Amino acid sequence: MPKIYLDYASTTPVDPKVMEAMKTYFKKDFGNPSSIHSFGQKAIAAIDDARQKVASFLGCELDEVIFTGSATEANNLAIFGLIKKGDHIITTQIEHHAILEPCQKLEKEGVEVTYLPVDKDGLVKVSDVEKAIKLNTILVSIMYANNEIGTIQPIAEIGELLKARKNKIYFHTDAVQAANYLDCDVKKLGVDLLTLSGHKIYGPKGVGALFVKKGILLNPLIYGGGQEQGRRSGTENVPAIVGLGAAIEETQNPKIKINIIRIRQFRDKLIKTILKIVSDSKLNGSPIQRLPNNINVTIDGAEGEAMVIALDQKGIAVSTGSACSAKSLEPSHVLLALGLSHEEAHGSLRITLGRYTTQEEITKFLKVLPQVIQRLRQISGYK
Amino acid sequence: MPKIYLDYASTTPVDPKVMEAMKTYFKKDFGNPSSIHSFGQKAIAAIDDARQKVASFLGCELDEVIFTGSATEANNLAIFGLIKKGDHIITTQIEHHAILEPCQKLEKEGVEVTYLPVDKDGLVKVSDVEKAIKLNTILVSIMYANNEIGTIQPIAEIGELLKARKNKIYFHTDAVQAANYLDCDVKKLGVDLLTLSGHKIYGPKGVGALFVKKGILLNPLIYGGGQEQGRRSGTENVPAIVGLGAAIEETQNPKIKINIIRIRQFRDKLIKTILKIVSDSKLNGSPIQRLPNNINVTIDGAEGEAMVIALDQKGIAVSTGSACSAKSLEPSHVLLALGLSHEEAHGSLRITLGRYTTQEEITKFLKVLPQVIQRLRQISGYK
Repeated sequence: MPKIYLDYASTTPVDPKVMEAMKTYFKKDFGNPSSIHSFGQKAIAAIDDARQKVASFLGCELDEVIFTGSATEANNLAIFGLIKKGDHIITTQIEHHAILEPCQKLEKEGVEVTYLPVDKDGLVKVSDVEKAIKLNTILVSIMYANNEIGTIQPIAEIGELLKARKNKIYFHTDAVQAANYLDCDVKKLGVDLLTLSGHKIYGPKGVGALFVKKGILLNPLIYGGGQEQGRRSGTENVPAIVGLGAAIEETQNPKIKINIIRIRQFRDKLIKTILKIVSDSKLNGSPIQRLPNNINVTIDGAEGEAMVIALDQKGIAVSTGSACSAKSLEPSHVLLALGLSHEEAHGSLRITLGRYTTQEEITKFLKVLPQVIQRLRQISGYK
Repeated sequence: MPKIYLDYASTTPVDPKVMEAMKTYFKKDFGNPSSIHSFGQKAIAAIDDARQKVASFLGCELDEVIFTGSATEANNLAIFGLIKKGDHIITTQIEHHAILEPCQKLEKEGVEVTYLPVDKDGLVKVSDVEKAIKLNTILVSIMYANNEIGTIQPIAEIGELLKARKNKIYFHTDAVQAANYLDCDVKKLGVDLLTLSGHKIYGPKGVGALFVKKGILLNPLIYGGGQEQGRRSGTENVPAIVGLGAAIEETQNPKIKINIIRIRQFRDKLIKTILKIVSDSKLNGSPIQRLPNNINVTIDGAEGEAMVIALDQKGIAVSTGSACSAKSLEPSHVLLALGLSHEEAHGSLRITLGRYTTQEEITKFLKVLPQVIQRLRQISGYK
């Protein structure tokens, strides 16, 4: 049975072009970038090339890009690297755990954190950001697009607001889910720090990047050989960095960009059809400010995990909430922040489309979903 | 011109078997291990399998192995994860920067650190460890085998010493360079924590592992989705973890183990011949307690970096000091700790052999080296 993958927000397969770019750096050009000899020089040149591609995507300088071992590490570096006791952070209730957990850790150590609420569509109000600013506010960290509900935040507007202030407040955005679809020019966004992930953009796992605007002093998380300008020690993961560079470049390929139109059409078709053919279902997140690949619905009388397992048995991979909390029994903090009840949050399904999604897959999914829901509702004795 | 690589301590090429094992996890079985569906389950099974291989190599339980993004991160996690203000750490003057730098950072925050000296061969005295112990000693961290001079420390003896004490002192060893050649059974060594690297054992870059004995409370470095039992968040780098598992397994392949005899013979031949044919040269590190692949010599009247560059021009890759400090102009802290002068330390050359080293490469190297030294000595006006 061919598998249908509709969970592209969890992770993506490595693009063939990315794989091709990485290939030589495992066995043939395997040098350590810190070595003086030609093996090392080839490795450092490959990293420079990848850094150039990321810098060009972000509209920043080469030395403003730090490669890390994951986007989670990049988010942690942005938070822990900037903040000290007594500082104040403004973030939102719907950030990824890679932001929320560091903030919660810092709270225990005497850092103040404001977790801004979102409206019923998952949007942060710019005026709420403004109102939350205190004298000791050092950092605002707000994700560009949400991983669960796909809501796109008004990052450029918040950037404007913060730029206009006399006292410098650093502005970080987690652009992990945005990078496939949205303009990540750091000047247009007005951000000082920005996080990217390899494996969400058809690049490899095990690599992330953090944009850090020139002049920002950032304490490292990981100390040692002094790689990445001393900001992230450890032998550079050359193939993965090359892969991230190739993946970022490929997001700008006109064919890939045109394909987004098709993805958005699939998304709209899915939302419209699900809400029509599945009774007592509703869309979570904004219908407008939404990633082109995200569908998140609450289906009454069907439990999220049960739906995922039942669909998996039919050869269709989707998600409930975010993959990162899939092992947890807690309902999604994002859906709760929208005002959903625990029961509604537990009954949510996330379908995320991608570069390889086909019409046939959409048709198959729309055929199987009502059958699965009907069966689960029978079991749970719904209505 | 075929390249001769004699810098295996810096990094190693990925073994074909390792590459083969990793392959499927980039594009086909690319799921996120946190996902409930079958793509995710395949990924988690692959990680479990790799974890089993590492646990079997170390003689430990599955849940005592944490995968990280590098050995540097694993070393940082061991140090930062255990230590708080007022604690005392015992380490050595010849550790890797991935241990020394975290220790130096902690010193600024009110942690006491004793950096034990080594003898002229680079060996730590067990009695020195004993004498350094204080009431507030929480951790002893001593590397198994040194990356620059290949000296093998008496880890099992130190383990015995620490085990015999009433107050628990955690014992960590950085086994990154040892794993190819030495028994890493954690019970025999008597260690509570042990660090492994992927790319030093013919596995991929961007992955390390930390053994943490059951019951040890370890604060994470990176917070987020709660992967690796909450000890190292971030989407698991599935292909790299699979690669580390395959690489560890391959170290135990009888063919690979027999090959070590050949490597040791090459090493002995090189040491003997270099000291004979290059005047005013001497061996750094222990002639006996030494990794089978390491040669480190000081050659008077020839500067280390100049030798590396001149040999590179002849198609031979070697190193001066450790690759991680190759970009630094500071002389090697390891060689200084042996009692070498700055000048002697600057005139050192590290030749490290590996799985693919051939007799032809050794012959070629021994032919080229004296020519290079002669030329450099002419330039520098030596004698």
